[in-house]
Amino acid sequence: MRIDILTVVPDLLTSPLNESILKRAQAKGLVEIVVHNIRDYTTDKHRQVDDYPFGGEAGMVMKPEPIFRCIESLKAERAYDEIIYTSPDGEQYAQRHANHFSTLTNIMILCGHYKGIDHRIREHLITREISIGDYVLTGGELAAAIITDSVVRIIPGAIGDEASALTDSFQDGLLAPPVYTRPAEFNGWRVPDVLLSGNFAEISRWQEQQAFERTERLRPDLLK
Amino acid sequence: MRIDILTVVPDLLTSPLNESILKRAQAKGLVEIVVHNIRDYTTDKHRQVDDYPFGGEAGMVMKPEPIFRCIESLKAERAYDEIIYTSPDGEQYAQRHANHFSTLTNIMILCGHYKGIDHRIREHLITREISIGDYVLTGGELAAAIITDSVVRIIPGAIGDEASALTDSFQDGLLAPPVYTRPAEFNGWRVPDVLLSGNFAEISRWQEQQAFERTERLRPDLLK
Repeated sequence: MRIDILTVVPDLLTSPLNESILKRAQAKGLVEIVVHNIRDYTTDKHRQVDDYPFGGEAGMVMKPEPIFRCIESLKAERAYDEIIYTSPDGEQYAQRHANHFSTLTNIMILCGHYKGIDHRIREHLITREISIGDYVLTGGELAAAIITDSVVRIIPGAIGDEASALTDSFQDGLLAPPVYTRPAEFNGWRVPDVLLSGNFAEISRWQEQQAFERTERLRPDLLK
Repeated sequence: MRIDILTVVPDLLTSPLNESILKRAQAKGLVEIVVHNIRDYTTDKHRQVDDYPFGGEAGMVMKPEPIFRCIESLKAERAYDEIIYTSPDGEQYAQRHANHFSTLTNIMILCGHYKGIDHRIREHLITREISIGDYVLTGGELAAAIITDSVVRIIPGAIGDEASALTDSFQDGLLAPPVYTRPAEFNGWRVPDVLLSGNFAEISRWQEQQAFERTERLRPDLLK
């Protein structure tokens, strides 16, 4: 799989894309992640990527030409399954999107910055608009890092223990049950007795019941 | 404001916390962001931060002792308004949380990793559990970066043009209207005529109508 990320602040992405699982997945050749500086696609002396909005609002808007050139030059090299724009008014990102994106060959993620990108790019070049949540960020870079992380970690081979990903929250429509590790008693706080019982049928029943009870209490909307 | 972030992969946070708005806000003294390596609070030779889960599940669990020591040592230095744990089963993060957190003095954000943290820490030390969305990440580091970014950018003085933040999506309960910049025609695609009219009353009406129409079409749940 290949992921191209288009941004005006490429340095922001350096450490999230090169630590932990993403670092290992790239080293294993499971994914190629390429960050592009949109400023490299300007043609003017000042390498300008933003301009004042029409209509006199506050904030700056990302100019269409450098983004257009960057996307077109990548599309000339390979076919893209999705050209994603990250924006708070996009489709709400959820685990099912990550599962789907992880099966694709080439995706592009365009990060908005300032007040956003010129709407003509959204209308004519973007195939999918994604919001990672109902909050506003400085730019789309952290959203792109989140999409990349959530997608790459479920590519087979990316995490050592694949069974672990299958028991994650949302994969079965439920929140995960509580987890505990040693010591069995810490600071006067004990782990639930059932987990120390060695009775795996009972443990499994407890975990299912906890997952269901937690989902019902904390996120009843997931059960509808 | 001070934000302490507790993690087992501190390097992952280096670039997101030191670019763009977060860099400038720290340089201006508007916020102090301190990253703590939980491994520094281990006492064993191998500096172990995780262990096998009770109950025989797949994946590893973050041990309670190093986290406990790290949190307690920080609490001994100052009072914290919130001790936040980032987890997909937490309360769903939204702009109203960012607005609220930006008014606090000291907050702590604990990043989960592996299969999560020992549940006793969540029960006894955490004051608020936050989920940034319905998807699973390698760790809570990107979630902590998102909370930090969304909070710091709205501290007065953090962004140059404060009026810009006030017209962001969600601040008025609506998605933002489309934005356009020069050139007025690009690749045969024209910006809407009204934005070139110079009639600010009409432009403002158009923007409100677009914001409402987009919200109704894309996120009808926000209007309920």
